Amino acid sequence: MSLELDLESLMRGKELVKRGFARMQKGGVIMDVVNSKQAEIAEKAGAVAVMALERVPADIRADGGVARMSNPSMIKEIIDCTSIPVMAKCRIGHTAEAKVLEALGVDMIDESEVLTPADPYYHVVKDEFTVPFVCGATSLGEAVRRIWEGAAMIRTKGEAGTGNVVAAMRHARLLQAEIAAVQASSNLEPMATKIVDKFFVLDDEAKQNLGESAEYSAFHKSRKEIESEVLDILSEIKKLGRLPVVTFTAGGIATPADAALMMQFGMDGIFVGSGIFKSDDPDTMAKAVVEATAHFDNPQLVGKVSEGLADAMAGLEESKLDTKMASRGH
Amino acid sequence: MSLELDLESLMRGKELVKRGFARMQKGGVIMDVVNSKQAEIAEKAGAVAVMALERVPADIRADGGVARMSNPSMIKEIIDCTSIPVMAKCRIGHTAEAKVLEALGVDMIDESEVLTPADPYYHVVKDEFTVPFVCGATSLGEAVRRIWEGAAMIRTKGEAGTGNVVAAMRHARLLQAEIAAVQASSNLEPMATKIVDKFFVLDDEAKQNLGESAEYSAFHKSRKEIESEVLDILSEIKKLGRLPVVTFTAGGIATPADAALMMQFGMDGIFVGSGIFKSDDPDTMAKAVVEATAHFDNPQLVGKVSEGLADAMAGLEESKLDTKMASRGH
Repeated sequence: MSLELDLESLMRGKELVKRGFARMQKGGVIMDVVNSKQAEIAEKAGAVAVMALERVPADIRADGGVARMSNPSMIKEIIDCTSIPVMAKCRIGHTAEAKVLEALGVDMIDESEVLTPADPYYHVVKDEFTVPFVCGATSLGEAVRRIWEGAAMIRTKGEAGTGNVVAAMRHARLLQAEIAAVQASSNLEPMATKIVDKFFVLDDEAKQNLGESAEYSAFHKSRKEIESEVLDILSEIKKLGRLPVVTFTAGGIATPADAALMMQFGMDGIFVGSGIFKSDDPDTMAKAVVEATAHFDNPQLVGKVSEGLADAMAGLEESKLDTKMASRGH
Repeated sequence: MSLELDLESLMRGKELVKRGFARMQKGGVIMDVVNSKQAEIAEKAGAVAVMALERVPADIRADGGVARMSNPSMIKEIIDCTSIPVMAKCRIGHTAEAKVLEALGVDMIDESEVLTPADPYYHVVKDEFTVPFVCGATSLGEAVRRIWEGAAMIRTKGEAGTGNVVAAMRHARLLQAEIAAVQASSNLEPMATKIVDKFFVLDDEAKQNLGESAEYSAFHKSRKEIESEVLDILSEIKKLGRLPVVTFTAGGIATPADAALMMQFGMDGIFVGSGIFKSDDPDTMAKAVVEATAHFDNPQLVGKVSEGLADAMAGLEESKLDTKMASRGH
């Protein structure tokens, strides 16, 4: 068996392996990069992985229109020039983009609301892949649905491209509140039913055609089987007091103190996109965010790395947003 | 024990010490400054403290986007060049920024709605810090929540950066009206319950997921304990006929007469930001506002210091505001 095959089998395959790969990123920073020069900056700064994409979320937001999987040449260029894991984004529910990314050899796929969703009802059935997936969530139900589908890592959605940490904080708090509710609950079945409901509800248009009581799902399992599996996930959450997969924060982190805040809140690591490459000095900002993430409980150090930084990205206020990416997918 | 340690212990530590430091500012003016030159003007004019920040609120308002903690280098520069206390602002709920400011050695932290809030639900848990905090309030309930969290000073919010005193007056009147209601009340329990309710309410999204009756709080205390402690604060307010902490006014003070108006209304002191350094002659305006604050009940003197002043800041009408900073946090 070649070394390459060994590495491959350590990172890809069954759920346990996929979650294990995600766990290797813990405590680290994953940075969006749009070219090999940025990938080099990220790697030198100590990022644990890079996310190869054509435009950072702030530009996707500003450009408008439909955002899709990046060009495979661009992704291959990043894979060729870096030694750390490379992730890439597919549209929500775009199984074909995901298959392309898997074939390209990316280390993890982000089924991301930053791109324009491709399926209005369903996400990619991720356990049919050997590559691990990360998915966004704004609440426990959303996280559980993604885990049930096979996500190996969850990230709170926040609002990508805003440089505003408030939405990331909101989703982290909602998740925490709901985990507390799970722990306090003596009967998780009603919650499981509620979570699974969303798998079986199409929109009003469909209900109008099918009748209020009609059910439809994309899965080759009965509702009963799904509910029982979701109940297992909830029981694991109750036992652990946290999600059973690595949970990162994303969407709006723009300063070292933002990274420290989210880590202090119990997040396992940080995704940062526009926050680095829309700041006035990306090299220094990248290093400072990595340091602040690793030493989040050392305010002297977080202050020190924040000193003399050039301006952080300008940012957008929540109330002024045209598009709330966090509301895509559920 | 060194002198430095003695000074430190006089200013930082338990609630009593923190409130004591706040009391030392009474009758004085605290001025926003963005560089060492402005800090010198403020100190020479007789300010009791300066607030180090990168932009005065009028500029934050005009620039839009996300406003965050100032660069630690800038804050250190101000600390190094002044002999009066130096305050700095963190975002609402941004515990990591607050920790950095504490580590930097600022004398008081303003958890301020002038910056973009970082947590949609909660403020910093201030009694976990040794540095004193000042927080804004538009009403009694808000003030009591901040005092319960550990604020050593309250300032009415007003509308920062407008040069318009009307919002500061509104908040001072609301506070006064509610203090009168507390004094007239024979049973403060329903009021305490109402005030504490806001600690346990997430937004509609969370209620939808968790059920109407779900409760979540950021505090390691039961609702019953919190209610009992809030009741103690209300009883103290009833006894004193005022808040138990020093209460300043802020947000829109632009002339010596504005300062005198708010002091005549019973405020303990004045925060003034854009009002000084957006006026046509900051040196003279700074001195005039300090004089008018100290001698608020002497209209001859207030008139005298107002004579020959260059123009005050232009200011903004309330109905024309894009962003009402006072509505941030509750």
